Amino acid sequence: MLSVGVAGALGKMGVEVVSAVSGDPDLELVAVIDPSAVEGREHPACGLGVLGSLDPVDPSTVDVLVDFTVADSAVGNIHWALDNGVHAVVGTTGIPADELERIAARAAGASSNVLIAPNFAIGAVVMMKLARAAAPSFDQCEIIELHHRGKKDAPSGTALATAMAIEEAADLPEPPESQSREVAGARGGRLGPVGIHSIRLDGFVASQEVIFGARGQTLSIRHDTTDRSCFMPGVLLAVKKVGELRGLTIGLDDLL
Amino acid sequence: MLSVGVAGALGKMGVEVVSAVSGDPDLELVAVIDPSAVEGREHPACGLGVLGSLDPVDPSTVDVLVDFTVADSAVGNIHWALDNGVHAVVGTTGIPADELERIAARAAGASSNVLIAPNFAIGAVVMMKLARAAAPSFDQCEIIELHHRGKKDAPSGTALATAMAIEEAADLPEPPESQSREVAGARGGRLGPVGIHSIRLDGFVASQEVIFGARGQTLSIRHDTTDRSCFMPGVLLAVKKVGELRGLTIGLDDLL
Amino acid sequence: MLSVGVAGALGKMGVEVVSAVSGDPDLELVAVIDPSAVEGREHPACGLGVLGSLDPVDPSTVDVLVDFTVADSAVGNIHWALDNGVHAVVGTTGIPADELERIAARAAGASSNVLIAPNFAIGAVVMMKLARAAAPSFDQCEIIELHHRGKKDAPSGTALATAMAIEEAADLPEPPESQSREVAGARGGRLGPVGIHSIRLDGFVASQEVIFGARGQTLSIRHDTTDRSCFMPGVLLAVKKVGELRGLTIGLDDLL
Amino acid sequence: MLSVGVAGALGKMGVEVVSAVSGDPDLELVAVIDPSAVEGREHPACGLGVLGSLDPVDPSTVDVLVDFTVADSAVGNIHWALDNGVHAVVGTTGIPADELERIAARAAGASSNVLIAPNFAIGAVVMMKLARAAAPSFDQCEIIELHHRGKKDAPSGTALATAMAIEEAADLPEPPESQSREVAGARGGRLGPVGIHSIRLDGFVASQEVIFGARGQTLSIRHDTTDRSCFMPGVLLAVKKVGELRGLTIGLDDLL
Repeated sequence: MLSVGVAGALGKMGVEVVSAVSGDPDLELVAVIDPSAVEGREHPACGLGVLGSLDPVDPSTVDVLVDFTVADSAVGNIHWALDNGVHAVVGTTGIPADELERIAARAAGASSNVLIAPNFAIGAVVMMKLARAAAPSFDQCEIIELHHRGKKDAPSGTALATAMAIEEAADLPEPPESQSREVAGARGGRLGPVGIHSIRLDGFVASQEVIFGARGQTLSIRHDTTDRSCFMPGVLLAVKKVGELRGLTIGLDDLL
Repeated sequence: MLSVGVAGALGKMGVEVVSAVSGDPDLELVAVIDPSAVEGREHPACGLGVLGSLDPVDPSTVDVLVDFTVADSAVGNIHWALDNGVHAVVGTTGIPADELERIAARAAGASSNVLIAPNFAIGAVVMMKLARAAAPSFDQCEIIELHHRGKKDAPSGTALATAMAIEEAADLPEPPESQSREVAGARGGRLGPVGIHSIRLDGFVASQEVIFGARGQTLSIRHDTTDRSCFMPGVLLAVKKVGELRGLTIGLDDLL
Repeated sequence: MLSVGVAGALGKMGVEVVSAVSGDPDLELVAVIDPSAVEGREHPACGLGVLGSLDPVDPSTVDVLVDFTVADSAVGNIHWALDNGVHAVVGTTGIPADELERIAARAAGASSNVLIAPNFAIGAVVMMKLARAAAPSFDQCEIIELHHRGKKDAPSGTALATAMAIEEAADLPEPPESQSREVAGARGGRLGPVGIHSIRLDGFVASQEVIFGARGQTLSIRHDTTDRSCFMPGVLLAVKKVGELRGLTIGLDDLL
Repeated sequence: MLSVGVAGALGKMGVEVVSAVSGDPDLELVAVIDPSAVEGREHPACGLGVLGSLDPVDPSTVDVLVDFTVADSAVGNIHWALDNGVHAVVGTTGIPADELERIAARAAGASSNVLIAPNFAIGAVVMMKLARAAAPSFDQCEIIELHHRGKKDAPSGTALATAMAIEEAADLPEPPESQSREVAGARGGRLGPVGIHSIRLDGFVASQEVIFGARGQTLSIRHDTTDRSCFMPGVLLAVKKVGELRGLTIGLDDLL
């Protein structure tokens, strides 16, 4: 039985994590932390009182700390975990590269491990793995990513990461330039040889299709998410496996 | 039994048309014309000798002239048809607007009719019709068009025509601007409120997907072509129905 | 300003309806009713106390009654509405045919109207409308419907209704029989000439694709839902328009 | 420079192979064989005379024999190749299991190798490879295969092979049984836990989609073919690599 603390427990993802950890027979939820905690108020998804910080937490009672906060808090929480022999599973994005390097250096010799993943949807991780596996058999690739209108950035981080992974996995030739562009305002971009197209329509949560082309055939790999609950199996897997990793690990690939 | 002449009979589309007309029990192929005709050489898809021009053709033996040539020739051929009481079915693209106006004016009072269509794939015509019918029920729309790498222009003419048709059919609000665009080189464009994305990958012949978005749902209309033979039912339908139209008709919509 | 009552206000759909009506500036929520009401307890999505039945409701204060209950209750509620000159918008399914006939007869001469719809997702209604519009241009059609594993029946009611609508709209020939079937256990069925395929995989909420085939081309119409909120625009539209209908109306088609 | 002979050179696939080999700068076409050869008639896709059998062929001039014939001929041709130190690349299907065993036994100790593949479309091979790679991360899977109406058998051989490969790669639980089946006549089947759905519509050449489901997400792998030319890269790859294999190899997997 692993004991788990959750930082950012009142955020959208945090509430889902608290609920998922509570419902897993192999895990015990021992602490929920959120800066917006109100003294004496219970967490809506479990019976525990919400703590305003990690200070009152006894590290010896926590095996794994899950962090879905903001970059600044996450960095502090990770160092608290490394100081105290607690494993950390982090879904917070935007941690600066130099902080990541510092974390990697400290984690290398530490008695506990750190896993940071930008996307805990197992299907998204598998999609990228499959795209890398398929790339050497084709020499043409484009990506369509489809998100709701509320998403402000384009292309998506996952699309850019996928394009980079494909470029590393295969040496695709540059596509021919289109000769005329009568219309301005396309949303998307091109990363090396890989064209990216960004659809923004309500009704999509987060979808991506990677299409490889060849004479007379196409191969597509598509991931669709319909609910935030899709991230929980990846979080739970990470919590259970982080102890077997070493140092700092980025992404879920090594766990699948 | 309608008697049919085919101009441009040795081009890719012309050969298909000759073959389709020959195989239709309700049509009789009476003349095949192509400027690259070689004296005494038979057409590969029928037993007839190929004529170098319309000059030797007796108009009274032709009910319908099908034209898949180039814009200049097509204009001349259409006037020949109107002069002689022959109906014309034209798949040639790029006829200038002023020539179209002149044709419309002459055809208005003529004893024969002219049908000009940019796309004889019935599915493409239906796709546009459905997109117009769906548009008033949604306020978000984007188009993905997918063609082989040999296609030089982007967005496709059909995508632009579809976006214009949607804009006419519904008063869609402008989409929110994406805040960051980290990557240049997107292929596609935006026509009013409708984003267009142009995929260029071998393996596609000519495909288009129109996606409408709304809270919690999406509706897609997609047309895929896998073979040039898909245009023939539209050509044959036009040949059989052109006599019932009046004056100049653009597109197949009125026939479906 | 229309005043609205909601029966079944504590069910999953009911809570969504209460929330949607409350948030609509053109509607005023005046009564929420649910058999599981607890004396003195407020509705979670609005400030109103929940009534255990329609008895204490003054009909003169209600323009439209929305009903998402169970078949038995719905029938009683509809008759209450017709008795009292209140319009009824009903999303409850499973009302027996003989009850529907009785309702139709009474509504024909009544001063208020009844709208019963099996599916308030506007996209689903549009999908069926487009399928009917496309059918006469093709002579081959199959339907793929995709739902989560929790859905017990197959094919889905919407798929069967779509197949019937297509059969009515076009005279499709019977498809050729497959010569060998090595494997048993297919999920789906065939309604006249239209094959239906039922996918049951978690990750889908409710999706359906209608595919028309022809030589060298296919045309697909696909509706995907990702969230129950997709039904609310249809409910609000029905509430606002039910007064303009006459008698009993089945389905949203006439409102789009 | 490898020298290549083609058996079945006048069949549909044979003509494509002759054309592809002729156009490859690393290959030299040295013999074309077909039982329907007419004395003195040249092959339409190359300058060579077509031989009626392998008898007049000097094996020392042939490095690789490509065979797209029928099962009986193919078995004879493979033994001719093994007798003479010629590598064989075989696309002929339907060779009985006992003949395959005999070929495997002889090839094990032979100085030349045999590759037999049911599908030379590289995308189809990659699709199956990706499906195997994805399977352990999911516990729900269904397959949709889409072919033209002329295809008589259902489910397709590729769909059955894919389902078997997925079952081997992962231990998927049995899906829940649907409770009601109101409609008969579904086309497809179920292989262990994997549902297969067979669409038969003109406009499709040969397509297959493998869909994995999980809570809140789906992952799809789809292969579409639009033209028989898609098989040629796989044939040419096999011709160039068969010399590096050992004994009898089934399928292209080891070459990718």
